[in-house]
Amino acid sequence: MNNYEKRNLTMLTDFYELTMMYGYFKEGKQNQKAVFDLFFRPFEESSFCIVAGVKQAVEYLNNLHFDKEDIEYLRSLNVFDEDFLKYLSTFKWTGTVLAMEEGEVVFPYEPIMVIEAPIIQAQLVEAALLNIINFQTLIATKARRVCYSASKAGVLEFGLRRAQGPDASVYGARASIIGGCVATSNVLSAQLFNLDAKGTHAHSWVMSFDSEKEAFMAYAKLFPNNCLLLVDTYDTLKSGVPNAIEVFKYLKAQGHVPIGIRLDSGDLAYLSKRARKMLDAAGFPEAKIFASGDIDEYVIQSLNSQGARIDTYGVGTKLITSSTNPSLGGVYKLAALDGEPKMKISDNTIKMTNPGKKTVWRIFDKHENKALADLITFDDEVIDETKPLVITHAVERWKTTELKDFYCENLLHETMSNGKIVKEFPTALESQSACKAKLERFWDEHKRLTNPHSYKVDLSDKLYELKQKLLKEAKK
Amino acid sequence: MNNYEKRNLTMLTDFYELTMMYGYFKEGKQNQKAVFDLFFRPFEESSFCIVAGVKQAVEYLNNLHFDKEDIEYLRSLNVFDEDFLKYLSTFKWTGTVLAMEEGEVVFPYEPIMVIEAPIIQAQLVEAALLNIINFQTLIATKARRVCYSASKAGVLEFGLRRAQGPDASVYGARASIIGGCVATSNVLSAQLFNLDAKGTHAHSWVMSFDSEKEAFMAYAKLFPNNCLLLVDTYDTLKSGVPNAIEVFKYLKAQGHVPIGIRLDSGDLAYLSKRARKMLDAAGFPEAKIFASGDIDEYVIQSLNSQGARIDTYGVGTKLITSSTNPSLGGVYKLAALDGEPKMKISDNTIKMTNPGKKTVWRIFDKHENKALADLITFDDEVIDETKPLVITHAVERWKTTELKDFYCENLLHETMSNGKIVKEFPTALESQSACKAKLERFWDEHKRLTNPHSYKVDLSDKLYELKQKLLKEAKK
Repeated sequence: MNNYEKRNLTMLTDFYELTMMYGYFKEGKQNQKAVFDLFFRPFEESSFCIVAGVKQAVEYLNNLHFDKEDIEYLRSLNVFDEDFLKYLSTFKWTGTVLAMEEGEVVFPYEPIMVIEAPIIQAQLVEAALLNIINFQTLIATKARRVCYSASKAGVLEFGLRRAQGPDASVYGARASIIGGCVATSNVLSAQLFNLDAKGTHAHSWVMSFDSEKEAFMAYAKLFPNNCLLLVDTYDTLKSGVPNAIEVFKYLKAQGHVPIGIRLDSGDLAYLSKRARKMLDAAGFPEAKIFASGDIDEYVIQSLNSQGARIDTYGVGTKLITSSTNPSLGGVYKLAALDGEPKMKISDNTIKMTNPGKKTVWRIFDKHENKALADLITFDDEVIDETKPLVITHAVERWKTTELKDFYCENLLHETMSNGKIVKEFPTALESQSACKAKLERFWDEHKRLTNPHSYKVDLSDKLYELKQKLLKEAKK
Repeated sequence: MNNYEKRNLTMLTDFYELTMMYGYFKEGKQNQKAVFDLFFRPFEESSFCIVAGVKQAVEYLNNLHFDKEDIEYLRSLNVFDEDFLKYLSTFKWTGTVLAMEEGEVVFPYEPIMVIEAPIIQAQLVEAALLNIINFQTLIATKARRVCYSASKAGVLEFGLRRAQGPDASVYGARASIIGGCVATSNVLSAQLFNLDAKGTHAHSWVMSFDSEKEAFMAYAKLFPNNCLLLVDTYDTLKSGVPNAIEVFKYLKAQGHVPIGIRLDSGDLAYLSKRARKMLDAAGFPEAKIFASGDIDEYVIQSLNSQGARIDTYGVGTKLITSSTNPSLGGVYKLAALDGEPKMKISDNTIKMTNPGKKTVWRIFDKHENKALADLITFDDEVIDETKPLVITHAVERWKTTELKDFYCENLLHETMSNGKIVKEFPTALESQSACKAKLERFWDEHKRLTNPHSYKVDLSDKLYELKQKLLKEAKK
């Protein structure tokens, strides 16, 4: 196996996690049992997200250890005493993790992960867990949007050169696949995660020959059954497409079926319609048109509305960076300590947290098998499926809905137990299928890109009441 | 040393680079000597960029090799023949690299790197070089802007949890330091690049105690000489600052000097002014006010204009993702093949490339030591400093300026020669100093954030004439 993922990420933490750990250690509080929730608040980009990165997050926890060099480095800072450094040198993750599956549909305030561990351990991992989950979930969410607008056209992930560093390209490609992309150009990511790697040639291939036609012919001879030609090096309609057609005729005469052409610049709506006509007229109605260049879900919607004839999109920069919103603001908040529920109080309602150890239920209509609402409850609450369930609006409490004929599914699964991984991880392609199946169980009204119908996420009565009680106590 | 950077990135490439390499190999063209330029086109975010990532880019080239598992993986794709796989198994970088220094001030179209290598090698590295240079240069550029607006206030890089993956946090912190940040919260990045790691405590520290004051006191006892308290867990002015002051009084009585407080939410202008007054009135005029929370260069300008009293900014998400423009569109274009200049022709003028092997000169005023203009020339051109030099506007050719009393510096340095590293890399902190010194040699008019005065970048007459000639030939 490629060694890319063999890195020790233990030191990937904010310095204040270490000073706090030192504080818990010196105060003798290090073994207090903490529960932290990892969740995001309302996200401008999308009313829901697609969970990704759980596998890397759990592998990170599983591999936690400070190497000798790390301890030496920390000693050199002259901040920590030898007792603490000795403790770190034997540090091991012993916590329990509940997590949503990759590809899950998640709404604001629902814990994607619930971490239960001695506070000294749970504190160390805050920044790295957020880093991993925030980014992959961001990109899977963006990919879902791009693939939704592309509808039946396939979407290829092409972002390596504009991704924010090697990891962003490698894990971003993985997350794009989970969110619905059919393949990636990134060879390393394809190798690591068993994805389909795709690509043809660049302008430099064409420029390295004396003529475009010569370049196309050489490529066609090399890949007679996989011949996709980039037609915009010089002039798409006057040179690129006519040369491609001549080469396709040569291939056809040899009994091969050419794949098609790729447009990478210019007006994609106009060029794709013109190129389609030229290919059809030349007897290549089955030749596909690929398009790339500054594409995102909005550009695709515009191209669709103009009747563009594009079969596959190559989407780079705007997907791999989630350019319209390049960060998901996931947070990691203390929910309980030694069994005592904890809650962050804030003047800003959206910054308030939900106290206690919790879980998340999705409620489905029995007949339609579509999701009706989600319910966040304490982890030991049971939902009686035989009785009507009243769902209340999270803020406007007078708005209620009574649900009947429903069944529930718990979205959080025990993934680590006392430091051991207890759940097998699906492959990225399996998570893609899971994601598609989960999205199928939502009404279209929730999935559209603009002004989606708001989906109900309620707190159980018990949870709501505790929250109110803690709020009142704090305000005294 | 931490093993983080020990990964083999050879497979970090776009699939089409491999199909093109295979094509060059099968066509017998693999040893044609190619020159590629790595540069960016006009960038909305900033009229110039700060170069970063060159060290990682060159180390990547230096370590290129396909492992046995990589060859096996490529074989499993059934795309390449055994001759080619055998060639890959012995692949080694033998190219020559000219590069700008990290911390250099670079303008659009100026090559940051010039790569000269057999085309089969030069093609492999396109995507990874762009990935590395694009991201670090993007973040160093953003950091320069944030630090410029912060003026005398220090800027701390706090972005780990919102960075686009581990590498983005680690290399983004490095680039932030090159661009002017004084420290980072990222322990791993600090360890790898010998940066200053900073941080205090989070809300969870406060919440893990029965009261805020107890939490502050425990922290103060632990770090009596490094006591910076986060004051917004419950209520900044009613609880946080008064509790901090009480704890500071305790520290003062023990002979310690408290560092200060950190504001992380709320109206930072208002809160900082009120907190400043409270600290001053309590006898702590030397206590510093740190502020964090959704800050970027524009927020800092607004805070400055409101008279906010902030001594140090912690800047996270918006710096580490360059949120207003999360990608730098650097490209890698063929400039010559076997000594023959090559040029990409496009209807889109800004997509046109400059042909031939080139270099970049910066022209300084002899008396003021300030940069006057840059000149892109062929690599064998010499500028006669004893004669007036006419600089012509890149597009509006009738606009000319005659420069006298100047001297020139070449911005490209041989960094690898025939596959060997021939230049020592400065540390990130040395590159930060270099960057400051380089910026000092620009007039303020070019450095301001809004509508900076445009800086002249011209082509030598010879280069301009060749470009026109190739254009005319192509249009025939």
